[in-house]
Amino acid sequence: MSKTVRELAKLVEGELCGDASLAIDRVSALEEHAPPGSLIWISEVSMLKEAERSAASCVVVPCEVTASRKTLIRVAHPKLAFAKILWAFHPLERPPSGIHPLSVLGKGVQLGRDVSIGPHAVLGDRVRLHARVTVGAGVIIEADCEVGEDTILYPNVTLYHHTRVGRRVIIHAGSIVGSDGFGFVLDPATQRQVKIPQVGDVVLEDEVELGSNVTVDRGTVGSTILRRGVKVDNLVQIAHNVIIGEDTVISAQTGIAGSSTIEHHCILAGQVGVADHVTIEAGVVVGAQAGVLSGKRIKAGEVVWGTPARPLVESKRQIAGLSRLPDLLEEVTVLRKALQQAGIALPLSQRK
Amino acid sequence: MSKTVRELAKLVEGELCGDASLAIDRVSALEEHAPPGSLIWISEVSMLKEAERSAASCVVVPCEVTASRKTLIRVAHPKLAFAKILWAFHPLERPPSGIHPLSVLGKGVQLGRDVSIGPHAVLGDRVRLHARVTVGAGVIIEADCEVGEDTILYPNVTLYHHTRVGRRVIIHAGSIVGSDGFGFVLDPATQRQVKIPQVGDVVLEDEVELGSNVTVDRGTVGSTILRRGVKVDNLVQIAHNVIIGEDTVISAQTGIAGSSTIEHHCILAGQVGVADHVTIEAGVVVGAQAGVLSGKRIKAGEVVWGTPARPLVESKRQIAGLSRLPDLLEEVTVLRKALQQAGIALPLSQRK
Amino acid sequence: MSKTVRELAKLVEGELCGDASLAIDRVSALEEHAPPGSLIWISEVSMLKEAERSAASCVVVPCEVTASRKTLIRVAHPKLAFAKILWAFHPLERPPSGIHPLSVLGKGVQLGRDVSIGPHAVLGDRVRLHARVTVGAGVIIEADCEVGEDTILYPNVTLYHHTRVGRRVIIHAGSIVGSDGFGFVLDPATQRQVKIPQVGDVVLEDEVELGSNVTVDRGTVGSTILRRGVKVDNLVQIAHNVIIGEDTVISAQTGIAGSSTIEHHCILAGQVGVADHVTIEAGVVVGAQAGVLSGKRIKAGEVVWGTPARPLVESKRQIAGLSRLPDLLEEVTVLRKALQQAGIALPLSQRK
Repeated sequence: MSKTVRELAKLVEGELCGDASLAIDRVSALEEHAPPGSLIWISEVSMLKEAERSAASCVVVPCEVTASRKTLIRVAHPKLAFAKILWAFHPLERPPSGIHPLSVLGKGVQLGRDVSIGPHAVLGDRVRLHARVTVGAGVIIEADCEVGEDTILYPNVTLYHHTRVGRRVIIHAGSIVGSDGFGFVLDPATQRQVKIPQVGDVVLEDEVELGSNVTVDRGTVGSTILRRGVKVDNLVQIAHNVIIGEDTVISAQTGIAGSSTIEHHCILAGQVGVADHVTIEAGVVVGAQAGVLSGKRIKAGEVVWGTPARPLVESKRQIAGLSRLPDLLEEVTVLRKALQQAGIALPLSQRK
Repeated sequence: MSKTVRELAKLVEGELCGDASLAIDRVSALEEHAPPGSLIWISEVSMLKEAERSAASCVVVPCEVTASRKTLIRVAHPKLAFAKILWAFHPLERPPSGIHPLSVLGKGVQLGRDVSIGPHAVLGDRVRLHARVTVGAGVIIEADCEVGEDTILYPNVTLYHHTRVGRRVIIHAGSIVGSDGFGFVLDPATQRQVKIPQVGDVVLEDEVELGSNVTVDRGTVGSTILRRGVKVDNLVQIAHNVIIGEDTVISAQTGIAGSSTIEHHCILAGQVGVADHVTIEAGVVVGAQAGVLSGKRIKAGEVVWGTPARPLVESKRQIAGLSRLPDLLEEVTVLRKALQQAGIALPLSQRK
Repeated sequence: MSKTVRELAKLVEGELCGDASLAIDRVSALEEHAPPGSLIWISEVSMLKEAERSAASCVVVPCEVTASRKTLIRVAHPKLAFAKILWAFHPLERPPSGIHPLSVLGKGVQLGRDVSIGPHAVLGDRVRLHARVTVGAGVIIEADCEVGEDTILYPNVTLYHHTRVGRRVIIHAGSIVGSDGFGFVLDPATQRQVKIPQVGDVVLEDEVELGSNVTVDRGTVGSTILRRGVKVDNLVQIAHNVIIGEDTVISAQTGIAGSSTIEHHCILAGQVGVADHVTIEAGVVVGAQAGVLSGKRIKAGEVVWGTPARPLVESKRQIAGLSRLPDLLEEVTVLRKALQQAGIALPLSQRK
């Protein structure tokens, strides 16, 4: 497949500077040895030199770049343009529709048209798959689940009973949706942990994407809800009764404890921990490895970091201070001695 | 299914205040729009107002609550009562017993009565399942494993060979029990990592529960052991030769490194890291994201937090101090200047 | 199986002190009740007493140990010797070769000799397995993958399309290789997250080992690469376009973000977070729970810890300082008062 720079510039509504008739046959990364015939992208003007050194034929650049010896496509949002061009070269491929003879379908299963069910998939009783759903090999869908149009379940995914999945959802391999929330109570009489039945469910709205080996627990009572467009990376844990707002992005290995709410358009970096009953308002950014303590509320638009999570500026000031702390300890000792030598009376100090 | 408040109060040995004949047909959460006919619970007196604003018909409350316009069930342990009432409305459902024709059974497999083996399950040679074991779809049980009565293995669980699982154990989907411990040694001659064979096994005693996508490694030599009633949340890692005591609770994404021992009735919050050869004595609470360093011992009943893990009080004092650190740095500079201006001789300081 | 101490000493090129004709029939751990007839090992002289108290018949010891009432095998590297002796008692067992009738093979699959394909395994079109590959039960290998000689894929592993796996690789159960990198871009016009197609692949070179429930994402464009001998523990996340050098060891629950490079012979402890576009040079050791910030470079051979990751010595000094911080705050207040009482003028301080 080959496309001209003209076609690509038009696709992304960019301004073309250079040879419009150049044929592009692949998309490359700046870090790679991008071959002639390839298109690359840069996010900042400072990367232009590196791009020019490559053998790539065309570079998607931000508008600030005005000239180059390379053919350019100038756009307001290079990363978005790059995504669109990648889609043009790599349109979504759908497996052939059909039901593999080694899959197992329960009673009362309802299938929309053109669904694809892979080998060793299992659909429990009354499962409903809408049109063009892809069920990968080894996927287990328990009873009474519903899966919306065009959704893709990759191999070895498990959906527990009564899970509701929207349209154009993607769930990567090994992810588990709807397992029991982690609820136990110590019986004071026996000193044993008693399991609290987990009788709620999970709702994944349209265009949610879950990475690999993600876990999303069902509500204890009520629902765990990921709203439209929530994107979740690998190995993330989402506990019972969590609610996540539209287009929020959660990076790998982050965990969100029970009954917390993350509003829309938040960004949680990797390995973040959000304790239970937290509210993170819209547009908040939580830095990597940060910890938000139980019951806290983070105000809309804040950028926080550290454990306990604080505004980023404050967090950075503390880290800077920490690096000067050993010197500071010495300095205070010096001052104390100076005072003593000057004969200034010092009140008793707790410090040894 | 509907039950009277009288029946429910009797079930939990609570004191009924209000209309004993009210019919309850479901259990709700306080956070939800609890409908008429539903029962909710509160853990603290302060939540009573919110409970009274709901449309719920009955509230399970702690004894401190003495009156309300709602019908109450007063108990010493509301959460425990709530668990019991949930069980009354949602008794454990067992899949029909039987062996699915698309499962695979090895040689010498022994099956107790009323076992349920789902589609695409695989039982290796000499596997023994006791009465009423449930083996979900896609579960792989390697050779020589034994699984006790009434245990439930959810879909896509893998048990490596020689794993011993007790009675009434629950293992959620995607969990792996008995994979190799992480043991390598760098050969100085070749500068290559040499694998140390992992020839031990895993023992899960009665009433253990593992969440989804948990990993429990077999012992290098000897066993990794989870004792009766240990409860483990999603995505937890338990390394080779770890021993965990009765009724200890481990929250999501926590990791316990090789040869560490956690005694009984501990609580490890989420994303905790316990290094190797640690001993955590009985009843210890480890706060979220804490890190317990290699070889440490934490005394019975302590509450610790932070990395390195310290007593909670100390940890909080340090966090408070840290927030004052930037101001402190400035203050010391001020003091130094004052001394200099007062003509007091200052010894040489390392600080610039 | 039984071996004489003479045979074992010869195997590990150790010096035998004691009864060369003793029969050893098993390997034990020091922590266990090592029975007579067993061999144990110690890494340090200080452990000798404990070893002597055991009933073990033979102890592998470092050269510093010169005498004991036990029969000894003295070696330069006891752990390496222990690994070799374990291999002697527990040689790699391979399942019988053959293709299970309940597996599914796509078009154009190429199989080397003596491959073993378990029940419910699925091989996509054009998958190539070289000689003696073991494909466990429930393993899904998508189209166009290649797997090298003697590689073992444990149950329920998933390889996405075009994954290339080398020789003598081990992938433990539930691991996912080649799922989509986590790439989204917010479209400013719609305020919706747009997925960036992930069109690269994953390369696992010879002798890589992945633990259980690991996730390795494919490159966005280009490859994610784990070089020869990389060892990865359970629940580790490796993002798109990461490159990891030879014999690097990565402990459980560590995460490495997009486009980072870890060079050869590094050690990353558990729960480490490496942000995107990081370079960790050869031989670096990163302590548990450390966080390496985006874009950083860690110089060859450094030992770092903490978040942000700093040289270990510095990190420890800061932790020590932190524990003295509450006292320091008090001390400075005392000094200030002393100056005021001595009538020394203090410039205005920001501190309240």
